[in-house]
Amino acid sequence: MQNRVIIENVKPQIDGGRYFIKRTVGETVNVTADIFSDGHDVIRASLLFKHQDADIWSETELVAQGNDAWSAAFTPHETGNFDYKIIAWIDHLTTWHKGFVKKYADGQHLDVELQVGADLLARTAKGYSKAEAKELAAVAKVLTDKKDYLNAVETVVTEGFAQLVESFPMKQFVSETPALSVKVERHRALFSAWYELFPRSTSPTPFAHGTLKDVEKQLPRVAELGFDILYMPPIHPIGEVNRKGKNNSVTAAEGECGSPWAIGSRHGGHKAVEPALGTLEDYRHLIAEARRHGLEIALDLALQCAPDHPYVKEHPQWFTWRPDGTIMYAENPPKKYQDIVPMDFECDDWQNLWNELKSIVEFWIQQGIHIFRVDNPHTKPMLFWEWCMAEIHKTTPDVIFLAEAFTRPKIMASLGKIGYTQSYSYFTWRVTKAEIIEYMTQLTQTESREYYRPNFWPNTPDILPYHLHNRNANAFFLRFALAGTLSSNYGVYGAAYEFCDNESFHGREEYWNSEKFEIKHYDWSVRNRLTDLMTQLNHIRRENTALQTTWNIHFTDTSSDKLLSYVKISENTVDAGNPDAIGKGSKNIIWCIANLDTEGTTTGWINAPKALFGITGSMNLLVTDLLSGETYRWHDEWNYVELNPYKSPIHIFKVEVFN
Amino acid sequence: MQNRVIIENVKPQIDGGRYFIKRTVGETVNVTADIFSDGHDVIRASLLFKHQDADIWSETELVAQGNDAWSAAFTPHETGNFDYKIIAWIDHLTTWHKGFVKKYADGQHLDVELQVGADLLARTAKGYSKAEAKELAAVAKVLTDKKDYLNAVETVVTEGFAQLVESFPMKQFVSETPALSVKVERHRALFSAWYELFPRSTSPTPFAHGTLKDVEKQLPRVAELGFDILYMPPIHPIGEVNRKGKNNSVTAAEGECGSPWAIGSRHGGHKAVEPALGTLEDYRHLIAEARRHGLEIALDLALQCAPDHPYVKEHPQWFTWRPDGTIMYAENPPKKYQDIVPMDFECDDWQNLWNELKSIVEFWIQQGIHIFRVDNPHTKPMLFWEWCMAEIHKTTPDVIFLAEAFTRPKIMASLGKIGYTQSYSYFTWRVTKAEIIEYMTQLTQTESREYYRPNFWPNTPDILPYHLHNRNANAFFLRFALAGTLSSNYGVYGAAYEFCDNESFHGREEYWNSEKFEIKHYDWSVRNRLTDLMTQLNHIRRENTALQTTWNIHFTDTSSDKLLSYVKISENTVDAGNPDAIGKGSKNIIWCIANLDTEGTTTGWINAPKALFGITGSMNLLVTDLLSGETYRWHDEWNYVELNPYKSPIHIFKVEVFN
Repeated sequence: MQNRVIIENVKPQIDGGRYFIKRTVGETVNVTADIFSDGHDVIRASLLFKHQDADIWSETELVAQGNDAWSAAFTPHETGNFDYKIIAWIDHLTTWHKGFVKKYADGQHLDVELQVGADLLARTAKGYSKAEAKELAAVAKVLTDKKDYLNAVETVVTEGFAQLVESFPMKQFVSETPALSVKVERHRALFSAWYELFPRSTSPTPFAHGTLKDVEKQLPRVAELGFDILYMPPIHPIGEVNRKGKNNSVTAAEGECGSPWAIGSRHGGHKAVEPALGTLEDYRHLIAEARRHGLEIALDLALQCAPDHPYVKEHPQWFTWRPDGTIMYAENPPKKYQDIVPMDFECDDWQNLWNELKSIVEFWIQQGIHIFRVDNPHTKPMLFWEWCMAEIHKTTPDVIFLAEAFTRPKIMASLGKIGYTQSYSYFTWRVTKAEIIEYMTQLTQTESREYYRPNFWPNTPDILPYHLHNRNANAFFLRFALAGTLSSNYGVYGAAYEFCDNESFHGREEYWNSEKFEIKHYDWSVRNRLTDLMTQLNHIRRENTALQTTWNIHFTDTSSDKLLSYVKISENTVDAGNPDAIGKGSKNIIWCIANLDTEGTTTGWINAPKALFGITGSMNLLVTDLLSGETYRWHDEWNYVELNPYKSPIHIFKVEVFN
Repeated sequence: MQNRVIIENVKPQIDGGRYFIKRTVGETVNVTADIFSDGHDVIRASLLFKHQDADIWSETELVAQGNDAWSAAFTPHETGNFDYKIIAWIDHLTTWHKGFVKKYADGQHLDVELQVGADLLARTAKGYSKAEAKELAAVAKVLTDKKDYLNAVETVVTEGFAQLVESFPMKQFVSETPALSVKVERHRALFSAWYELFPRSTSPTPFAHGTLKDVEKQLPRVAELGFDILYMPPIHPIGEVNRKGKNNSVTAAEGECGSPWAIGSRHGGHKAVEPALGTLEDYRHLIAEARRHGLEIALDLALQCAPDHPYVKEHPQWFTWRPDGTIMYAENPPKKYQDIVPMDFECDDWQNLWNELKSIVEFWIQQGIHIFRVDNPHTKPMLFWEWCMAEIHKTTPDVIFLAEAFTRPKIMASLGKIGYTQSYSYFTWRVTKAEIIEYMTQLTQTESREYYRPNFWPNTPDILPYHLHNRNANAFFLRFALAGTLSSNYGVYGAAYEFCDNESFHGREEYWNSEKFEIKHYDWSVRNRLTDLMTQLNHIRRENTALQTTWNIHFTDTSSDKLLSYVKISENTVDAGNPDAIGKGSKNIIWCIANLDTEGTTTGWINAPKALFGITGSMNLLVTDLLSGETYRWHDEWNYVELNPYKSPIHIFKVEVFN
């Protein structure tokens, strides 16, 4: 091995390259590494990157940052998997040139040095095209012109010669790192507002079973509220055996609709539509209509079966059977969940099982679905998901998978690593200032940022968090506004939230009379404080690129633990995902100040982060609250705020900096 | 893939397993990992480890520590490379058993569950010996005894049954990590005191050229001072071409002896002995005599050549030749080092070069050398060293390589990673309390601990640090005592230090009239404050296992920035290298308090670390200063100290705890 350069500590990488990192189109990958060698020779290094379908690597030179740390960046502009790696070599031409300049300054005689340089130019030329080789040969000739030593020497110390050396890396004994991978997804993977509703609760007739056609009538409203994605719990036939009743009772009364997550009956399984909702044709029509309104429909992918799911008879080998001939229900001893039977991923026929499950995803992609909210992914093997999502992305890279997992931190993280586009998060339980700052810092400032795209939900059909129990609209307002400004991906379980449903199931974090088990009736024509907020906030998010990424958050100082202040800055361009663009050109600056006390007015002082705003001289800010329209001119580092939650618990300021 | 368990974040490991970690015989490897799976089934996991020459893995079960973190440990008891890895699986027998116990407590009928258990026992039995399978079958029979349901059920909930399940892991679809590696070296790799002298300065006749025979006469003295290793600069023929003179002058006067690091002349190269020093036979005799005194001789391995080294003529292809036919000298433009020519590791004949250089090490091993101090390893390729040391260790695992590199942090680290047993360190320049604590913390509390064994030198022939320029014996005393107590590996460039040579070369960190370029004469019969300290300290280090490792240091609070206080604790056994042994059995506790101001007395208060001492009740300490013999009884958390550097700038307390 003649290689002398060591390349170590390449970042970003996850678990030694076991998993890809993630970006969306237009988001930059900043790559750093430690690069060094024995001795004092000059090292040069390049970052190579290419789309996995491409043959040729693009190359950009790394720049030494001191202490043997180097860096470079690239920005993928299409979806798919990109590879990146680093190469480095001792560049003898550059080494010689730098030495020559020093010896020249030292007044040494450089006759032999010129010959050395000419030889190096000739060796360098071998790695280049004929035309380039010719250019180098011409220069070499000047160096060895015995008749004009002075001209030769002075040629070498010109700026032009330095540029020549710069332009012609002399690669030799090149060290190379293993290729790492980045999965590049569409912008929606990073910037999305989800609205969840139960289709069966959309009938205009009170407590009649809503249909997909009824859902179609809701599309203008959801679009007007400004959401991007309409997500519905499973639309498949609901099991009739061991069906659950109201409030999760073990047996359903006659006519009760059951939980949509107990999938499969004599009417079909995961590729069928519940007859009470309509037909597959209705669903395809809904998908198309939604698109007309600028909305995408998300399918709930819940890989579990009711006892009467067709799979149970057709593929009994995929389930666990007990010695008495009965099927094994889902259980968490001593509890049993008898409306659900889990699939046995350890069964001998696992390959057919995997393929069938993948075919479910493919089936719905064919119907026009490109977004899947995956139910309880952490109860199915990680390796299955990793394979399944990779396979799907090979042909359809724009498919988004949202992991609905509320579980232990390392499992949440693992789902991100194996490829989930987005993940539900602990935001639902992060309430105090310290909790929010700590959680956001962990999400955005640690390795987590490379693989885990959080999606912030203030509620779900499964979770009415304690801090919303019996609370008024102020609390609902605050949590919604936090979700949509802290995180570029967020969602809400809509009607229950708009109408501030705050009644819990016996004090637990669950809804009383949960819509999971019964049909609800809502007056969808009502407009209230929450629907106004939704409309405004989603409009603000679309107008301000700073809110279209999660990675650019900076928390700033306030005088009170009740006042949470954060700044998000981006270029005012479509290249929203790029936190590194901060500081170039005209910026989009959003500054949120929230009063975390939703019971009463909080007054206090907030610090204007001068450095962050790029202000070197005196302060002159015009801030406009995008919710209220109020404006303030601020000239001081500390500024007074007063937030009455009955009016608004949050300022969402757009900041204009005047110098 | 039916595997469901994910194993991540296995520690210790360096750069994704690219390099081995390091231990000495008897030092424990604590292994941790994140281990989790989908669902709620019970995971079990084992740490497997074996010597690379062994066929069979040893196995010890990992224990869950909460939050999906697991841990286990193993302790290698011989030298060589050990592999370790983790396996993990869903244990269905354990899952069933835990569920059974819960259902039993819940009062459920367990007829079918007993049958499930019996089936699982039968499946488990397949993985075990005939006798064990028989034992399991007998238990299964009890479970399925239809005539005695109650006995069957109660059998399962006994402690004995739980132990049975514990003893018979039901391995299936086992997940496995790649094997990692630990290099295990002899205890001397972690615990050593080095003494450096120039053999040519050992003649009893003033300024006559000392010989290896003269060195032999020094052995009793070095042994009496308590050192383990006697290290001499290169003993090879010194180049006669471009020989350096006194104080590094470019040309030597007639009769000047030159730098021993300019190796090779008509008298031979790296496998020869400088005639002025004696013969190869003399050197072998010296090695044997040293061993009789409990000393090892370390050879200086300096892979560079004087221009008249035999290699230059025999292997011109290993050197760089300039267009004018001259050889290229070492240079750092505009400076030239004309007494040295570097070898060209990029030459076409690199394989023969590597083999020849390795053969130098092998040659000296054959003469009895097992310790090499490697000069400027960072000016030769990392990959060469990595290969060379691995090859040597295959047949001679007890060889110690000390890297003499004072260079940038990542290169220092890299030399550790590629296999250097010990490394010179930045201790030489860590002077203030903050500097020392920060550096020790980095060395012992970060990943560095896994691969970098520091060796602390207060001086070397190359370095008279600024803080010793023109300073009195107090400063020399302090720095020596710090080196030998902070680090279990330390060394000193002896005579210059004992006689407090404090005169610099024009204010630089170099010695005036450096012994590198001339013969010195010392009165080796003198005993002074420094020789007394050396004798005492080395004795204390041998008597106290707490000082035989570097990894067990804890800094404790004092009332002053001038007072540095640190505690080292170990088991009072030969298993000195194991910081994890703290807290078990009788401890050896050493508590050092240094006054960093060597000009005047410092008084102040030091905190007795109760928790560290394992004290839960009231304090009752007997501390004995092992240098002065003074004792104190301390009953308070804060205790008064007064350190007069003219008496001693440091307390080295042995602590006895009475309860």
